[in-house]
Amino acid sequence: MEYHPENVPEVDDLEELVLGGDEKALCNFLALLQPADMAVIFDRLPRDLWPKVVAPLNIAQISDLMEELPDHLRDDLAELLSPNQLTSAFEEMASDGAADVIADLPRPLAKKVLKALPAEDRREVETLLKYPEDTAGGLMQIELVSVLERATVDEAVEAIRANAEEAGDLHFVYVVDDDNRLVGSLSLEQLILARSDTSIGKLVDRDFHCVTTDVDQEEVARMFRRYDLVSLPVVGDQGTLLGRILHDDALDVLEEEVDEDILRMAGAEEPELVYTDQILKIAWVRMPWLISTLLGLTIPALLTRLFQITFPYMATLVPFVLVIGAMGGNIGTQSATIVVRGFATGRVDFDNLGRFLYKETIVSFIIGITCGIIAGAVAILWQDDAILGLTVAISMTAAIIISAILGVLVPYLFRLIKIDPAVAAGPTVTTINDIVAIGIYYLVALSIVA
Amino acid sequence: MEYHPENVPEVDDLEELVLGGDEKALCNFLALLQPADMAVIFDRLPRDLWPKVVAPLNIAQISDLMEELPDHLRDDLAELLSPNQLTSAFEEMASDGAADVIADLPRPLAKKVLKALPAEDRREVETLLKYPEDTAGGLMQIELVSVLERATVDEAVEAIRANAEEAGDLHFVYVVDDDNRLVGSLSLEQLILARSDTSIGKLVDRDFHCVTTDVDQEEVARMFRRYDLVSLPVVGDQGTLLGRILHDDALDVLEEEVDEDILRMAGAEEPELVYTDQILKIAWVRMPWLISTLLGLTIPALLTRLFQITFPYMATLVPFVLVIGAMGGNIGTQSATIVVRGFATGRVDFDNLGRFLYKETIVSFIIGITCGIIAGAVAILWQDDAILGLTVAISMTAAIIISAILGVLVPYLFRLIKIDPAVAAGPTVTTINDIVAIGIYYLVALSIVA
Repeated sequence: MEYHPENVPEVDDLEELVLGGDEKALCNFLALLQPADMAVIFDRLPRDLWPKVVAPLNIAQISDLMEELPDHLRDDLAELLSPNQLTSAFEEMASDGAADVIADLPRPLAKKVLKALPAEDRREVETLLKYPEDTAGGLMQIELVSVLERATVDEAVEAIRANAEEAGDLHFVYVVDDDNRLVGSLSLEQLILARSDTSIGKLVDRDFHCVTTDVDQEEVARMFRRYDLVSLPVVGDQGTLLGRILHDDALDVLEEEVDEDILRMAGAEEPELVYTDQILKIAWVRMPWLISTLLGLTIPALLTRLFQITFPYMATLVPFVLVIGAMGGNIGTQSATIVVRGFATGRVDFDNLGRFLYKETIVSFIIGITCGIIAGAVAILWQDDAILGLTVAISMTAAIIISAILGVLVPYLFRLIKIDPAVAAGPTVTTINDIVAIGIYYLVALSIVA
Repeated sequence: MEYHPENVPEVDDLEELVLGGDEKALCNFLALLQPADMAVIFDRLPRDLWPKVVAPLNIAQISDLMEELPDHLRDDLAELLSPNQLTSAFEEMASDGAADVIADLPRPLAKKVLKALPAEDRREVETLLKYPEDTAGGLMQIELVSVLERATVDEAVEAIRANAEEAGDLHFVYVVDDDNRLVGSLSLEQLILARSDTSIGKLVDRDFHCVTTDVDQEEVARMFRRYDLVSLPVVGDQGTLLGRILHDDALDVLEEEVDEDILRMAGAEEPELVYTDQILKIAWVRMPWLISTLLGLTIPALLTRLFQITFPYMATLVPFVLVIGAMGGNIGTQSATIVVRGFATGRVDFDNLGRFLYKETIVSFIIGITCGIIAGAVAILWQDDAILGLTVAISMTAAIIISAILGVLVPYLFRLIKIDPAVAAGPTVTTINDIVAIGIYYLVALSIVA
């Protein structure tokens, strides 16, 4: 079957088949599904229909589905399986997938599954579980094909044959010395084209990328992106070959990081959570940002009230507080977003802070003057009040420039003190910029009026 | 050489070498650089040092560097090269890389380069240039290895040998019928393990993903992500094999889309631009959003002024306008961001709008009531005014719920009318939410006071 983008099956088709009760048609439909599509469909399928859809699945399908499902749905699937089915499903998985799934299962269930696994699989999974989830060690799988430097092409082919079933996605063979230290890699293409008695040592590519187990997953993902890697070997402290990371796992990390960044910028933590049905928890993670914003906003509200009482004749100023505050917040968010995304993609870092800040200052100067003139003109046209116009124009310009500079500096500062800079483009910092902008407005107003 | 993350060379090292004048040391340093690292270093290197660094590069290095450099730096590099060097560099590139680079060169230069290319290369590039850049056709490269279904494994190996130099990153061989229609793919692993006289037709995997040339690049990238692909064949209308897309090109598309989404949410278009030194242009693309926001904000300012004049005894209400407006904007951005990111990753679509909206309504109800109670309590404690407290509490709750619902609906609406939904999480829509929230506040105030 050819898989074009338009023939991805829909949840409605499955629902119809399940409710129709034709078991054979259901089996045929499921057999045609890619695991990734099945996972999407399961996510959308009403929970009470799950048992009927799971029943006809074979172990390989269950295993694939388990790996593809979002974390929060795996428990639900596990509950529908017999202990035997569950163990067999884990035996089918690659070591990294099995370790990831087991790490996310409820503790007692995880223990039970681990205990039921064959000794070798259990050892592999337990080894992987020791590495923190967000490091190269936590990402790698143990299944790979390695050959000795002094082996021949024929022997390498035999090694592939022996491991082909266990280690999927073989694009490279890793070459090691007698102490299992990594000396290079060899693509299957090179292997196919070489004569069968050639020594591997003559073919091996000794220019290679590798990471140690403790390298952060973001760094790993960045290497895949920068060097267009398909797989990346992971080594121990002495250079011993321990495992490999595949491109799809690196891609998942990239997506995860992007999720985190984007949602953090909106003040919603835990991207894994916000797309689930756990409404109370969702409200709970989104609330802190909103409440801290709310409390922060009482400062300009207080200032405004104070201003109203102290300078009653300047009541005309008050409506513009809104505009200046919001504009400060807006440009600050722009600058912070550009910096945060620049950090994530390597286009901005501590090396080029000076240049970036200089650029941002000029850009915000141009924007500030323009917006200042527009706002000042609106104020004069509307209220026929030159002092109001001047106050609005000057403070709008100043607020925009200062907010833009803060928008650059705050993410840098956050990164320096090891807080995720994405937080700096979030609502809390927008609020700080609101407050700063309003403060500037009142200061300018006071100095012009006084 | 092993490439660990920590031994990526720095621009300072290169600058020192260039200024030191030791040409041999410079050559040695450059020879060790990965093209991707060289591109990053070039981006940061003062422009007047470029000629000295380019001089010792060989054609292969220049070609790689050209492909890796950001668009806006390619012209600068091209200017440093002789016509011969430039043509040779293009001959070295894969067809998709050459077409991409040529498409981005200034028109006269592009024409000159095309004319100087050997007939076959030119034909390939011209074919690719016909496809829109953001489609599968624009992404694909023509270099690949295909074999006839009725060929043998031995013949396939010969086909690989014949094309190995031209087609890099060979992980699959594509199998076609006598009319060059794609019938399936074959991994090199399967090929290595098969007997040399086996017929390809027996080995070929007939379950495969493919796209036609007109499929949008976002859809292509989504397929790579969802199905963990390494490469994807591209076919014509009749199923004729035309080319293949490689995983690193798909990853670039994913990154590009994320750039676009994130920066659009901050009201800054053209991610390619905002990291360059073109200050005037940067101010220009960021300005429209800020000015439209500025103009939009005059509406609540007008409302506030009107309110001040009409209900002078309600001056105490005004300071809270800020708070309620900003909170409406904040929650609206949260909701819109969650929807926009959900669209981008396939977790949210038209199928589950109802469920998503229902969830968001309940979440915002919880958040709205909480924030309403807090804000009302603050108002009462501060001003000792029960009517003010009630007005603030009710309108805060209503503003939050309505802004959250708008935050979901507006991106859906934008997508329906084919505007990028990311715009819906941007400053313009935040402003709309500000205005709606403030409108609600005044409405509630009027109905309670009246």
